[in-house]
Amino acid sequence: MFMRKKGEPIIQSLCDTDFYKFTMGQFVLHRYPDVPVRYSFINRTSKVKIGDAIDADELREQLDHVRTLRFTNSELHYLRGTNEYSERMFKEDYLEFLRAYQLPEYDLRVKDGVLVLDFPDAWSKVKYWETIALPIIKELRSEAMMRNLSRAEQEEVFAKGHLRLMEKIRKLRTRPWIVVIDFGTRRRFSRKWHAHVVRVMAEELREQFRGTSNVWLAMKYGLLPMGTNAHSLAMVLACLDRSSDEAIIESQRRLLREWEEEYGLGLSIALPDTYGSDYFFRHIMTPEQMRAWKGSRQDSGDPIIYGEKRIRHYRELGIDPREKMLIPSDGLDIMSIFRIDDALNGKIKLSYGWGTNATDDLGFDSVSIVIKVAEANGVGAVKLSDNIAKATGKNEDIERFKEIFEYNNLFSEECKY
Amino acid sequence: MFMRKKGEPIIQSLCDTDFYKFTMGQFVLHRYPDVPVRYSFINRTSKVKIGDAIDADELREQLDHVRTLRFTNSELHYLRGTNEYSERMFKEDYLEFLRAYQLPEYDLRVKDGVLVLDFPDAWSKVKYWETIALPIIKELRSEAMMRNLSRAEQEEVFAKGHLRLMEKIRKLRTRPWIVVIDFGTRRRFSRKWHAHVVRVMAEELREQFRGTSNVWLAMKYGLLPMGTNAHSLAMVLACLDRSSDEAIIESQRRLLREWEEEYGLGLSIALPDTYGSDYFFRHIMTPEQMRAWKGSRQDSGDPIIYGEKRIRHYRELGIDPREKMLIPSDGLDIMSIFRIDDALNGKIKLSYGWGTNATDDLGFDSVSIVIKVAEANGVGAVKLSDNIAKATGKNEDIERFKEIFEYNNLFSEECKY
Repeated sequence: MFMRKKGEPIIQSLCDTDFYKFTMGQFVLHRYPDVPVRYSFINRTSKVKIGDAIDADELREQLDHVRTLRFTNSELHYLRGTNEYSERMFKEDYLEFLRAYQLPEYDLRVKDGVLVLDFPDAWSKVKYWETIALPIIKELRSEAMMRNLSRAEQEEVFAKGHLRLMEKIRKLRTRPWIVVIDFGTRRRFSRKWHAHVVRVMAEELREQFRGTSNVWLAMKYGLLPMGTNAHSLAMVLACLDRSSDEAIIESQRRLLREWEEEYGLGLSIALPDTYGSDYFFRHIMTPEQMRAWKGSRQDSGDPIIYGEKRIRHYRELGIDPREKMLIPSDGLDIMSIFRIDDALNGKIKLSYGWGTNATDDLGFDSVSIVIKVAEANGVGAVKLSDNIAKATGKNEDIERFKEIFEYNNLFSEECKY
Repeated sequence: MFMRKKGEPIIQSLCDTDFYKFTMGQFVLHRYPDVPVRYSFINRTSKVKIGDAIDADELREQLDHVRTLRFTNSELHYLRGTNEYSERMFKEDYLEFLRAYQLPEYDLRVKDGVLVLDFPDAWSKVKYWETIALPIIKELRSEAMMRNLSRAEQEEVFAKGHLRLMEKIRKLRTRPWIVVIDFGTRRRFSRKWHAHVVRVMAEELREQFRGTSNVWLAMKYGLLPMGTNAHSLAMVLACLDRSSDEAIIESQRRLLREWEEEYGLGLSIALPDTYGSDYFFRHIMTPEQMRAWKGSRQDSGDPIIYGEKRIRHYRELGIDPREKMLIPSDGLDIMSIFRIDDALNGKIKLSYGWGTNATDDLGFDSVSIVIKVAEANGVGAVKLSDNIAKATGKNEDIERFKEIFEYNNLFSEECKY
């Protein structure tokens, strides 16, 4: 069965996390190691009180266990040997940092059934908690939901899950040009189910399965570890200097330049929606970068409208959009993948970052939980995104950032996951 | 997954067999140890050539492996400690026989895709092959059918099987007075799947699951080992003296007397259909036995007509049929169980011997394979049953036995399993 045995830790390796934690981790270590930041747990599904559903002591036990883990020499070898994006992309100083690394302390309370979980520390240290703590919380919740089922009923849950997975795979096979990537670590039902899903996708989808964001599973199955960066980079950089609107805007431009300095064009997938994609492509990314970078990831708003805008924009710049990559990754399921494929296939290169619907489709209500930068450098962090329902930050900050980034997006949709 | 690992033997214990092999085995050892008999494999599903489907060398390897097995001391303890039917039902001389026991040699050939498999030896020795060789042949065929499936597709087969099993269990739960027994050893899809099905039935059906015919699984899960006797007893006894019709008839009466001598009334479930149930209850079993014996097993013909006849007969004798047991065991599925229940519940005690449909319902065509006594004491063995399509023996013998036993049954139906 795909649940942990009693007493077994949920996270058993520091590599059981998303690859981009390392690409971002090195970037942060090299440039912003000491910025004080605070990451906070947020449950966007208000009807589910996570603090009631899971036992805080058990959560604490799991979080404490991960703090006892260290990167093994084999894991460091694996990272050192990673050359798919550029030769020796992880430098020796960073690998030495990882060798000595321990996850920092955290603050955990439950208040009126609400789980309050904060991770305050220097950015280079605290960065790794997000994609460790989320699957822990998620798996504890899965266990809580399974607790009232008999063993055979639990097996039934996974039997149905496997049939659903196979059905999705058969649908994907009807369009053999569609390529998916596993992005399901953070909201996976359980560690073992995630491993099962990735194994089955790799075996059954073959060339249609490009890789996984999970480093442990990439190692385990010999797959390509995938990922570039997340919103936290843009969010923290926008906290460093709030003295003027121009400084905030400039922080976003600097991010692109510095990312390219760190990795060349190996990881040049832009994530444009932190403060609105329209502004990003008009005023942050330069036409030269548009030309040079591989493409972008679409993580909020309408993926087809987004794709059509990118295609138009590339063409305006004399760039053939068919040479550029678009990675939709916002709550995808087979229907939305097919809808995007219908609209955009052949016009731009597509890879689908398939997450929660791949690794948490076991018949239970899903919860949209995230761990986000709440503040950095003493000021509140802000994210707008192309879906205003996903915005995070203090209201006054959100309003200020909307003005700075000429945000007039009306798209608003509750997060599925 | 519920398939054996490469190199793993299919049968791993001499107790992985039906309980009634032991109840009959002791009976035979005590009374007819040296009768020369020949058991033969018969595939009643002519469209499937078992000899083509499975590899004879692999079959040989599996059969040879079982010949290396011996009863362990723990298994002998278990049998010695079996007291559910009567105190110390297995005697020390029989347990000593088992301690020294090795399965005898066999004859195996494949001729034009037809598997020819014979077990000729003294009855007390050769008796055990049937329920060992059948699940071996069955599992090799299952493996042949699974071979063209990918691992994830094989997992899908078992996922669907588990859902089917749970659906059946939920249906059975709607009639909490229905009680089933696992009779699925001989045609189980695989050893591991059998173990899964029995575990789930025991956990989910609780009091509605009375026990299993498989001794290994009874031991493994702490269940009641169940079973009494099979047609082979009646068939071999009818071979001992063919000098007169009366001698043949008398052999059947003797069987009942001797069975009762061996076990008292602990195992007093009659199996009446070897030469037709109507004759059996009119001329073989005495009214005293009808009164004393616990009941009967219905293994061919129409179970409802059979049940109604028994009820009427019991009443004629002034016996309350609600004190008597009827065990339908002929190719049952949920629909037929419910049909029998609709007709007979409350009128007679019912336990359902549920076999192939419980342990081999994985979406593949089933095959009706048996290993039957072909000859004994130098003459051809005969079985008529209440379904003439199930009759075995030479034509002239069948005709003679039909006359002797005034067989005028018109029921004929191809075996599902």
